[in-house]
Amino acid sequence: MIRFTYTSIHAWSMFGGKDHIQVVNGHLHISGADTVEIARRFGTPVYVTSEDRLRENIRRYHRAFPDADKYFAVKANGNISIIRILAQEGAGADVFSAGELYLARLAGVPRERILFNGNSKRDEELRMAVTSGVRVSIDSEEELESLSRIASEESKNVEILFRVNPDISVNTHPKIATGLKSSKFGIPAQSVRSICEKAMHMDGIKPIGLHCHIGSQILDVSSFSEAAARMMDLVGEIVDIGGDMELLDLGGGLGIQYDPAAPPAPSPEDLANAVLPVIERRSEELGVRLKLILEPGRSIVADTTILLTGVNVVKRAHVTFVGVDAGFNVLARPMLYDAYHYIVVANRADAEISERYTVVGPICESGDVLARNRALPVVKKGDILAFLDAGAYGFSMSSQYNGQPRPAEVLVRDGEVELIRKAEDISALLACQIIPPRLM
Amino acid sequence: MIRFTYTSIHAWSMFGGKDHIQVVNGHLHISGADTVEIARRFGTPVYVTSEDRLRENIRRYHRAFPDADKYFAVKANGNISIIRILAQEGAGADVFSAGELYLARLAGVPRERILFNGNSKRDEELRMAVTSGVRVSIDSEEELESLSRIASEESKNVEILFRVNPDISVNTHPKIATGLKSSKFGIPAQSVRSICEKAMHMDGIKPIGLHCHIGSQILDVSSFSEAAARMMDLVGEIVDIGGDMELLDLGGGLGIQYDPAAPPAPSPEDLANAVLPVIERRSEELGVRLKLILEPGRSIVADTTILLTGVNVVKRAHVTFVGVDAGFNVLARPMLYDAYHYIVVANRADAEISERYTVVGPICESGDVLARNRALPVVKKGDILAFLDAGAYGFSMSSQYNGQPRPAEVLVRDGEVELIRKAEDISALLACQIIPPRLM
Repeated sequence: MIRFTYTSIHAWSMFGGKDHIQVVNGHLHISGADTVEIARRFGTPVYVTSEDRLRENIRRYHRAFPDADKYFAVKANGNISIIRILAQEGAGADVFSAGELYLARLAGVPRERILFNGNSKRDEELRMAVTSGVRVSIDSEEELESLSRIASEESKNVEILFRVNPDISVNTHPKIATGLKSSKFGIPAQSVRSICEKAMHMDGIKPIGLHCHIGSQILDVSSFSEAAARMMDLVGEIVDIGGDMELLDLGGGLGIQYDPAAPPAPSPEDLANAVLPVIERRSEELGVRLKLILEPGRSIVADTTILLTGVNVVKRAHVTFVGVDAGFNVLARPMLYDAYHYIVVANRADAEISERYTVVGPICESGDVLARNRALPVVKKGDILAFLDAGAYGFSMSSQYNGQPRPAEVLVRDGEVELIRKAEDISALLACQIIPPRLM
Repeated sequence: MIRFTYTSIHAWSMFGGKDHIQVVNGHLHISGADTVEIARRFGTPVYVTSEDRLRENIRRYHRAFPDADKYFAVKANGNISIIRILAQEGAGADVFSAGELYLARLAGVPRERILFNGNSKRDEELRMAVTSGVRVSIDSEEELESLSRIASEESKNVEILFRVNPDISVNTHPKIATGLKSSKFGIPAQSVRSICEKAMHMDGIKPIGLHCHIGSQILDVSSFSEAAARMMDLVGEIVDIGGDMELLDLGGGLGIQYDPAAPPAPSPEDLANAVLPVIERRSEELGVRLKLILEPGRSIVADTTILLTGVNVVKRAHVTFVGVDAGFNVLARPMLYDAYHYIVVANRADAEISERYTVVGPICESGDVLARNRALPVVKKGDILAFLDAGAYGFSMSSQYNGQPRPAEVLVRDGEVELIRKAEDISALLACQIIPPRLM
């Protein structure tokens, strides 16, 4: 398949609104810092995040939704400095495990802006949620019973939301379409009312809202307005039975434009235009005052970050392979979801496109392909490739597969570069290993 | 889809030849140790490996191939104690990175039984191979030039094999079919002769053999005999030009029987019967004496190990979900390759099958499903599920995605249980993170 391609990063940078990406003297820059210099200083692979862009992205959400809370989806990026910056900007956190709660609290996210989500929480996690005083999104009636028991044991009252499965089909990769009836998440819509009624009389439990999440990388905002309408119907059902509805959490899932040849992605403003009128009209009809919560992840961090990877070898076979030092151990999205990332040759970012390459990582699997048949300038051993839009589900999905230590992360602000995660060295492979003396 | 199922582990244990798996008083045991006790003592999830079975598996290879070297594919399992046990049994190591070389050497694998493989090796990795005196499998002409330069710089001679792309189609998951023409691995067969001729005159390089690897989880040994025949043709071509052919590495890839309803997998003996006559006949014709190398991974470790995971919740929705504490962060194979693992309810291992469940992990993606529509005894919160055959590409592909620390590994020998990798605690999520003081 031949794709429409660009002869330079300029066009993409301009129409994609990537103000933090520039080309200066042929080198790709991010927020004023030379990526070639960053690769030399910190080694490759390395994730490089623009702090300016990160702050701008959350501020866009604030402008579009001045009255809503924004809980950053920590699963997209678990770097504490990044969560910290978002917390400084007033964001909360959507956490899915004890580990993510720990990261969010360490980063300074206030407990009242944290929601503990999850379809399979351990009892210890429910207890941690109870004792740390955060709200819990309840995935099933069975979990509700566990939480009530634990809250009672701890003599606490827990505010809960019900995670609803709204049965909404969205146009995204099946592995990340979470709002389908068949997905593992949430309570079937027709059961929410009865479960809420039960919860209203349970010890330690205070139901105060509803929650849904329809998927990830969604590019059609009408799916969100559909979800909002269904959720407002359910709010009405709960209000009818005398339930207290203070919070409506519509989850995250707003997509971004990974591919310059694709249409632009909807903005937070587009999302607001799709959901706010629905919520306002129905709230008025029902006589409720709902606080809206959103859980953006990808749309906050993806475009803040590039992954720099070094070219180990250019191999001419039936196609020309560029072998780089990052594989699906570092960036899993292309292998997991056939995801597209735009690639720039960082050290010749203004060169003309002239060849087609298949870019592969160092992992011993045929599936370790980062880009197929991609039009690029001539690529040579020692070049630095930049994968754009790598800030969401990049480092957070990384592994040490094939004996590969995990990479560094750096933060750039106004041309200044700071290390925010050291690269692991080879000894990280030994962490936690114990060799029984009898085997020595 | 309805699968043929078993009412107990006994049948599977018996006809699958899993002598190390037993059911005693309703509890699943491995090599004489009670898995329920192991789960209680070490927590879940936890990987549990039978040392007895591990030793037996490599010995089966020795019996089937008394004259061949067996290089364990470290990517399948990077636990040093496991590699150490295999080294004690005379195995070598197939390593694919500096990290895997480091693990193999620390585990005591002698340098003369290590082959450094890889399609995208860093220059530092080539240098590490040169200075540590291991053989290198050369993936491309371009890499050959880098290696010659580095060997010359280090004043060393390196013995090399050429990794050949034999263009053999095998019946396995496309992500792990590595011997297709379209795969990123190896030198096209028609170029091997000319590259070898060139290498024979290069500084620091001594070509002594050929190498191929046709894929993973292969259940039809005729693919291996086809590969052996093609490789022997190439050996003939090299001998014709006066090349020195001492080693033939046929790689790994022998599959195992994950599913009791599937036909039994071929044994090392079946593999020997498929490839040895081909190699012997052609060697005689060519007048060469080749040492055979095999690179088994899965067929050595997969069935030695079970993954124990705790049931957090049983949720009745449109299907009944069992939510466990291991997701694709712990066991990626079902999500990556639609892989099947047989499941036993470890604490009621002799109970009758009575219901169908979809077993899901705690990860925030719809794709985090470990088994669909699986017939099991009644499952309750607090139960322990055992995923069999989890020793290959289990821990080695694990990640901390969704803020999940990685699990423990234990080794069992004759009823004795030893910890060989501690579970990470939540603070492992902070490892290497640096928060710039200005953000505090």
